[in-house]
Amino acid sequence: MGEGDKDFYHGKRVLVTGGLGFIGLNLSLRLLELGAEVTVLDNFVPPDSSGAIEQLRSRLKIALADIRDEDKVERVVREQQVIFNLAGKSGAADSNTAPLNDLDINCRGHLTILEACRRLNPQVGIVFPSSRLVYGKPRYLPVDENHPIAPESIYATHKLTVENYHLIYGRLYGMKATVLRISNPYGPMQSGDARAYGIANKFIKAAVAGTSISIFGEGEQRRDYLYIDDLTEAFLAAGCREEARGKIYNIGDKRSVTLLELAELAVAVAGRGGIVKVPWPEEYLAIETGDYQSAIGLAQKELGWSPLTELQEGVARTVAFYQQ
Amino acid sequence: MGEGDKDFYHGKRVLVTGGLGFIGLNLSLRLLELGAEVTVLDNFVPPDSSGAIEQLRSRLKIALADIRDEDKVERVVREQQVIFNLAGKSGAADSNTAPLNDLDINCRGHLTILEACRRLNPQVGIVFPSSRLVYGKPRYLPVDENHPIAPESIYATHKLTVENYHLIYGRLYGMKATVLRISNPYGPMQSGDARAYGIANKFIKAAVAGTSISIFGEGEQRRDYLYIDDLTEAFLAAGCREEARGKIYNIGDKRSVTLLELAELAVAVAGRGGIVKVPWPEEYLAIETGDYQSAIGLAQKELGWSPLTELQEGVARTVAFYQQ
Repeated sequence: MGEGDKDFYHGKRVLVTGGLGFIGLNLSLRLLELGAEVTVLDNFVPPDSSGAIEQLRSRLKIALADIRDEDKVERVVREQQVIFNLAGKSGAADSNTAPLNDLDINCRGHLTILEACRRLNPQVGIVFPSSRLVYGKPRYLPVDENHPIAPESIYATHKLTVENYHLIYGRLYGMKATVLRISNPYGPMQSGDARAYGIANKFIKAAVAGTSISIFGEGEQRRDYLYIDDLTEAFLAAGCREEARGKIYNIGDKRSVTLLELAELAVAVAGRGGIVKVPWPEEYLAIETGDYQSAIGLAQKELGWSPLTELQEGVARTVAFYQQ
Repeated sequence: MGEGDKDFYHGKRVLVTGGLGFIGLNLSLRLLELGAEVTVLDNFVPPDSSGAIEQLRSRLKIALADIRDEDKVERVVREQQVIFNLAGKSGAADSNTAPLNDLDINCRGHLTILEACRRLNPQVGIVFPSSRLVYGKPRYLPVDENHPIAPESIYATHKLTVENYHLIYGRLYGMKATVLRISNPYGPMQSGDARAYGIANKFIKAAVAGTSISIFGEGEQRRDYLYIDDLTEAFLAAGCREEARGKIYNIGDKRSVTLLELAELAVAVAGRGGIVKVPWPEEYLAIETGDYQSAIGLAQKELGWSPLTELQEGVARTVAFYQQ
């Protein structure tokens, strides 16, 4: 993010929906550093093991509400200048087990927010985090934004649906929305439901706890893992650049490693834990997408953004967080 | 459709959801002709000006229920061998005015049906009618199934979502679903809400009534109009071919005409009515997709299907229907 981009947030009224989740907490803290007036909308306060939420309470507004609650959503979106629309339920495997629940939270919730913005605040800038999972099994690598779309889970299907909501509200009502297709974020400050953790955090947490990291099969799939601070900068860049409106950007790391390499790195950096290979659980095998590598040239060019944190460094910082 | 395909339906238990709508009525009548045991699921009985519904009552089961009603849906899908999944709310302009309603009927409704099938009848064959609108404004013509996806309305977005539901339930649970991306169907037996009529039927009905056909702008957009009997045959072919499972097919006519040419044909065949050019209403201009022509080679090859009715002939039959 350029210096101009950072100044942009000073004194701006910014809403972070899902702001008490992993990405939301990191983004909110960064926005406070940049001098923004931050409101967080979330439907529950997760276990605050790191003390991050307690630390935030005095510095920002926390609106406890569900994004499906039209009245409360209307009240909170009115005065905002930028909305980072992070709320929702994550987890591809879960979404297949409870598809109607995923539909209700992830589609109805986001449509409720967009309708409120259309009526009360159509000028607001919006950034929506989608997922690399909308591409399904890659047909070529690295995967750019023109890669065919083939979601393999209800979660990915609904991410695509909500992408389309944002783009359509842009075309129909001139609303200023940007979509980020994010690869595999990891880093400090994941809290809440452990099942919703990304795989990298699960591995690092297990290593720090001295337990075994379970690898499905041989762990040969390659993925690019994106350090949370780099992801935060991508959100900030997308939220302030006019040329990003109505656009979709892949946001991921420049290089990929195998799951086994990631696990070995976590164990080496933590100096504890181990690795055990287990058979693939059926529900994960069904949605496994194989190797993935983001092509991030468009974001580098148009958002002036690039990931800066090497995997080794990111894992070390995350290990340090869990060791506290 | 080949002769073998026709025999397939003899004695088969077939469910047509949305079976009292335009496509549903035509398909149900054809299924009865082929000797199928037809159940129709619909949430209301539309005005029966043609007497078609009265004629059907003694020959098939009508289950009056909403597709969002889990208990009733479960009861009706249990024993079926093929489901034509036509239920839902049509209308792209309407969907943008009431997006949450469109979400509830078109996404929650179809997910409810699929969940019921997964639990109680995973062997059933399913055909889902999607729309050519999932492609948005064509980047090239004719539009084949690999054309990029860019829905311009909430309706088209939700059609895409439900396509993905069907494909995902195929991959995850081995369910046998086929998706048809339909262009612009027209023909006899449209009943119910006049706003949901296709443009061709609107034109023909206006001409027969001796009123003016309103053309937006110059009426230069080209479209391929598919006669309902040809569409019905496409459904039947898709519902009985194992090789169609998990696939998407464009279903449209072989040639396109401009809206103005269509209106002139309607007036000429009806021998009444006229044409008036009016400015584009904003809500239609916002979702206008320009020229469209289906590429139907894949359906011709794999379904053994091809449209047989010339536009002149189809319009003449539809005029005759409205003249009754």
